[in-house]
Amino acid sequence: MLALLPVDGLPEIRPGDDLPALLADKLRPGRDPALKDGDVLVVTQKIVSKAENRFVALADVRPSARATTLAQETNKEAALVELVLRESTDVVRAAPHVLITRHRLGHIMANAGIDASNIGQADAGKVLLLPKDPDSSAAAIRAHLAEHLGINVAVIISDSFGRPWRMGTINVAIGVAGMAALVDERGKVDRDGRELQMTQIAVADAIAAAAGLVMGEGNEGIPVTVVRGWADHGPAQTSVSLLRAQTEDLFR
Amino acid sequence: MLALLPVDGLPEIRPGDDLPALLADKLRPGRDPALKDGDVLVVTQKIVSKAENRFVALADVRPSARATTLAQETNKEAALVELVLRESTDVVRAAPHVLITRHRLGHIMANAGIDASNIGQADAGKVLLLPKDPDSSAAAIRAHLAEHLGINVAVIISDSFGRPWRMGTINVAIGVAGMAALVDERGKVDRDGRELQMTQIAVADAIAAAAGLVMGEGNEGIPVTVVRGWADHGPAQTSVSLLRAQTEDLFR
Repeated sequence: MLALLPVDGLPEIRPGDDLPALLADKLRPGRDPALKDGDVLVVTQKIVSKAENRFVALADVRPSARATTLAQETNKEAALVELVLRESTDVVRAAPHVLITRHRLGHIMANAGIDASNIGQADAGKVLLLPKDPDSSAAAIRAHLAEHLGINVAVIISDSFGRPWRMGTINVAIGVAGMAALVDERGKVDRDGRELQMTQIAVADAIAAAAGLVMGEGNEGIPVTVVRGWADHGPAQTSVSLLRAQTEDLFR
Repeated sequence: MLALLPVDGLPEIRPGDDLPALLADKLRPGRDPALKDGDVLVVTQKIVSKAENRFVALADVRPSARATTLAQETNKEAALVELVLRESTDVVRAAPHVLITRHRLGHIMANAGIDASNIGQADAGKVLLLPKDPDSSAAAIRAHLAEHLGINVAVIISDSFGRPWRMGTINVAIGVAGMAALVDERGKVDRDGRELQMTQIAVADAIAAAAGLVMGEGNEGIPVTVVRGWADHGPAQTSVSLLRAQTEDLFR
């Protein structure tokens, strides 16, 4: 059995907050839920970004000529488009109301993951960028929990992504620590003794997607989920293992 | 809390088997797990296809000229490519070892979902097509469970899909009955009172992805998962609600 336990009641996270310490306090023995060895802790990027003070006031952003043009093409605010470009290495698609880029972290995603909703009443006019390095953020949370609670968990930082051919968003893993993110079953044999083909499984993305069901969109006060019962399948990897190489990208 | 309960010990499904009846027996009161009202039952497409006898012997398939050319381009067996074309309305990408089409059901996917592994020892040389109409298959299972167990559940038929920019497969919903598949949060306000933007959530896909963690690739004898604790969010939809309209496809 796999269980997804919502973690609610965290305080509103503010710039400079020590998120690993807050999580350790929230999930220490005696709490409900209390972390156990082998759990996977899924944390939405939004609270990681807030703790890292990844807020930017749009009024402070001076759009380049390129951003201004792209803003017209996409019906988006020029300052926001400027931030998207700064956070990206490549524009993949631009169309009315759509701006898909390759984020500097390697993800192909809309608006470079920049968020204008649910970022706090006091932050009107501000937007929230993705964490600087979600794999490191995940590793820091994991290390803190091991050190202060003596509990060994994996950590996933999740974000909600659109998909090119399917409606709706789904959570994926943009930061991973302490677990195999992509489980490679190639070369194993199936029940009939045949070699399995094309069987790499994006387990970190699937766990993020599952946690998204508990957290809800906008995360509605549930920015963290404990996933219990997942048997890790191999050496630890970062989220980089989930990125398809640009040379294999048929849809640029 | 959301719980994912594996259902193992189903017999090997064979053409003509009454899958709804087998599931009702397997999940009836007193069994472990026993279905409850409000559960979501996730069933891998493979056993639905087997029951529907969607097997095809490759030796019986005569490749067209187009399939032969495409087979050379993709390094795939011509008979398999012929079946992919018959199951598809459109070739989206062809490259060495890659053949991505629009399946007649509307999904953009590799090899039209045709499966050559784990389809049974007796079926060497055969491949397995997707179910004829997974939404109807889901509805039939749901109706049977309501009628024979008096239990009201939602049903998802799942399949594992690759993603254009991310490594590994993840399960998605190709058949849905009795639940909202795409939850539309647009127009609702977030915690800060702002209107949420772009907030349609692919809940049926997320539940399929979650169930995939329990079922494993190739489904290793666990072709069914009971998802418990999901609060349905709206009027029932089929999997069609998860398909992006071709006119909005920027990546054909």
